[in-house]
Amino acid sequence: MPYNPVTDEILEALRGIVGEEHLVLRADLAEEYSHDEMAPVRGWPEVAVFPRSTEEIARIVTLAHENRIPVTTRGAGTGLMGGATAVEGGILLVTARMDRVLEVDEANMVARIEPGVVLLTFQEEMEKRGFFYAPDPGEKSATIGGNVMTNAGGMRAVKHGVTRDHVRGLKVVTADGSVIDLGGKVAKNASGYNLMHLMIGSEGTLGIVTEITVRLLPLPAELTSLLVPFQSLEDAVGVVPTLGKEGIIPQALEFFRRDVLEASTDYLGRAFPHGGAPVYLLLRMEASSPAEMERLIDRTGRLCLEAGAEDVLIADTAERQRALWDARGAFLEALGWSEQDECDIVVPRDRIAEIVLYSDRIAEDIGLRLSSFGHAGDGNIHINILRENLERGEWESRRDRVMELIYQKCAELGGKVSGEHGIGHSKRAFLAQYSHPVELEMMRRIKAAFDPGGILNPGKIL
Amino acid sequence: MPYNPVTDEILEALRGIVGEEHLVLRADLAEEYSHDEMAPVRGWPEVAVFPRSTEEIARIVTLAHENRIPVTTRGAGTGLMGGATAVEGGILLVTARMDRVLEVDEANMVARIEPGVVLLTFQEEMEKRGFFYAPDPGEKSATIGGNVMTNAGGMRAVKHGVTRDHVRGLKVVTADGSVIDLGGKVAKNASGYNLMHLMIGSEGTLGIVTEITVRLLPLPAELTSLLVPFQSLEDAVGVVPTLGKEGIIPQALEFFRRDVLEASTDYLGRAFPHGGAPVYLLLRMEASSPAEMERLIDRTGRLCLEAGAEDVLIADTAERQRALWDARGAFLEALGWSEQDECDIVVPRDRIAEIVLYSDRIAEDIGLRLSSFGHAGDGNIHINILRENLERGEWESRRDRVMELIYQKCAELGGKVSGEHGIGHSKRAFLAQYSHPVELEMMRRIKAAFDPGGILNPGKIL
Repeated sequence: MPYNPVTDEILEALRGIVGEEHLVLRADLAEEYSHDEMAPVRGWPEVAVFPRSTEEIARIVTLAHENRIPVTTRGAGTGLMGGATAVEGGILLVTARMDRVLEVDEANMVARIEPGVVLLTFQEEMEKRGFFYAPDPGEKSATIGGNVMTNAGGMRAVKHGVTRDHVRGLKVVTADGSVIDLGGKVAKNASGYNLMHLMIGSEGTLGIVTEITVRLLPLPAELTSLLVPFQSLEDAVGVVPTLGKEGIIPQALEFFRRDVLEASTDYLGRAFPHGGAPVYLLLRMEASSPAEMERLIDRTGRLCLEAGAEDVLIADTAERQRALWDARGAFLEALGWSEQDECDIVVPRDRIAEIVLYSDRIAEDIGLRLSSFGHAGDGNIHINILRENLERGEWESRRDRVMELIYQKCAELGGKVSGEHGIGHSKRAFLAQYSHPVELEMMRRIKAAFDPGGILNPGKIL
Repeated sequence: MPYNPVTDEILEALRGIVGEEHLVLRADLAEEYSHDEMAPVRGWPEVAVFPRSTEEIARIVTLAHENRIPVTTRGAGTGLMGGATAVEGGILLVTARMDRVLEVDEANMVARIEPGVVLLTFQEEMEKRGFFYAPDPGEKSATIGGNVMTNAGGMRAVKHGVTRDHVRGLKVVTADGSVIDLGGKVAKNASGYNLMHLMIGSEGTLGIVTEITVRLLPLPAELTSLLVPFQSLEDAVGVVPTLGKEGIIPQALEFFRRDVLEASTDYLGRAFPHGGAPVYLLLRMEASSPAEMERLIDRTGRLCLEAGAEDVLIADTAERQRALWDARGAFLEALGWSEQDECDIVVPRDRIAEIVLYSDRIAEDIGLRLSSFGHAGDGNIHINILRENLERGEWESRRDRVMELIYQKCAELGGKVSGEHGIGHSKRAFLAQYSHPVELEMMRRIKAAFDPGGILNPGKIL
């Protein structure tokens, strides 16, 4: 797809839209804007703009549309698949200044926000107002716009679902600069093809989201976390279906192994309330009263012990819970001393042990360190592939081999290439390999229908 | 769009696919197959076929594709918008024989079913196995395939969401006869454009669903219903945001007025536990223990009384609850002595009173009986327009005027043309009128991308 360069004339027009001080030329742009948090993908935009409104974005896209210039939208740049990297140059549109909570509608229990609102800030602000924004991706400095564009999942998906399940409406700038509203404050909608759900998870390739209406829930009255050490992975993840059948759905249900935990506690420089077990489950339970919580913990603890747990440690103060979840939250950073890549696979949750043990075998066969952890409650596992001290060429070839094997096994188990991190630039080949050709062709046609000129985030997904 | 007729040669080929006994010619077809439950839309197919498998459906669609013949898919025919009526003739593909529950996967808490499985049958079967299929549209004899294709909502949407929220995977026959699997047993998915969510609610115009993977929940331990009479509609629906802010989310939260209730009890020939109030809320609460239920009912009752409720009647036995919900379930049939049409609007839930009181005014102005009831918890209101003894031409012209005014008001309040019944053939003009031209154009392009020949359920949605 031949694109045009960003000329002086276009720069002048962009300055007229966003203002001189909100435009940065490539030469002056910080290095971090050429990549995201993990993907080994580099791409420099010709110019970065920091718009402040839907109207400014519509004008930028109109200009790009008329001049056939790529537009890559970037939130906080915390993605892991190169989805927000300007691999074809052009304009990088950064949403950082669109960080306003526009409305909190308490009667309808929705909030209308801009895409650059940071997840943690928003969660805390809503909590102060007595509301609960349920999506809880591990990366709290991500923007909610980015969460919507990757359909981010996170810890609380077990009970509350993923970002998609909490979006009620989107304002979108389309590839020709039009502004459309999809959904709204309504709780239900059966009015034609659901373009909002198509837009969610489309990684900025079908339109640019400029406003998001999310639903708010009541704050859970009681929260308690359980740390449950096990001797074997199979026993640990085997508890998940048992809990479900017994009617117990934790808010969060994570698993991790000793190596990742040790890396994390070293990284944080803090002690962990238990050490030495090969594998842990970490659960957070919601209840509406202390009595209900007590009953829930009793039942959960009993089922874990019956399934072979060594112990059940209860963290019922906010401080104790924070210690546990901070350790979990730091996994990715803790592994980050070494160059890494990852597979964000999702499998039916009864196949978790199978794929993780398979990854152990291939790590040994291929000679590469793999660290896996993830969401036991929903089958979404992050298998991190670590370079450590490997020579570059060797690392790349072993990494590629590992990925091939893992995605292949994942497909055999009825899994998918990405559970929550998206496809971005890095995983396009695997999406293509493990999608039905007709499904891929439909995706291509959708892209062509929404963005005939191919200017929106080129080089992603397909 | 010029279609070809179903020739003798094609009939012969169809007989070869489904078998002589599963093909019915137009001349022999029962009248009910020419329309649905309500829409004043008639359309006779040239032939109806009753396939039994994905493979048969793929062969039928391939044949239709090669010969440019329309294919309209029909479940139980309980739709209200003419969505399953063969308005362009061709082949009517009835899913009635595809009524098998293929798999209940307890470990992953999903079931894989065929599209012709009847909602009530499935709900009961799952309940016997200790599972809860949460979507609960009023029409229990609908097929789940039809529910998926209209993204049906229903009573329990307040707490559990709509059909979309419970679909994990779809097997789909595309317009050229290919078979693709979208989603699966996985709980999360961020692998490219979400064609599954696009397919849900597309009313058979983008593909034909031949298998559905739905998620199952644990059965709620405790269920209790509350009947709450009010003197005014504003007071009644005003309770809804109050409950939400207090952290109370009922499983179901319906409102209805005296006229509809009386029609229903007359129709059923049964007494109702309370009579004479102008408006009622009917709530069903879920709790995990009797103690929690007691607390929940106390708090809910108190909030209702503070909001002006006359009384709070508690139905805690299965029998008493059934009496209440049977009355609610019979509303549509009870009004059905008279020809009718309906607006299935959805508004932000704090605007319910406004639109219902507006409908009272226009009923009086225009001289037509309107009966409204619906889902107070999510703002989805069914405004039924009754012909009663009006002369046909007069009825049609008044009905059209009422619809115009109601959809216009609905749009002003930030609402949508359909909350849960879909667009079908009847409401196309209103979808077109109240959608952004760019949104409509995107829908048209999606239709063209999925079904370039326009053979799948023509004359619907767009």
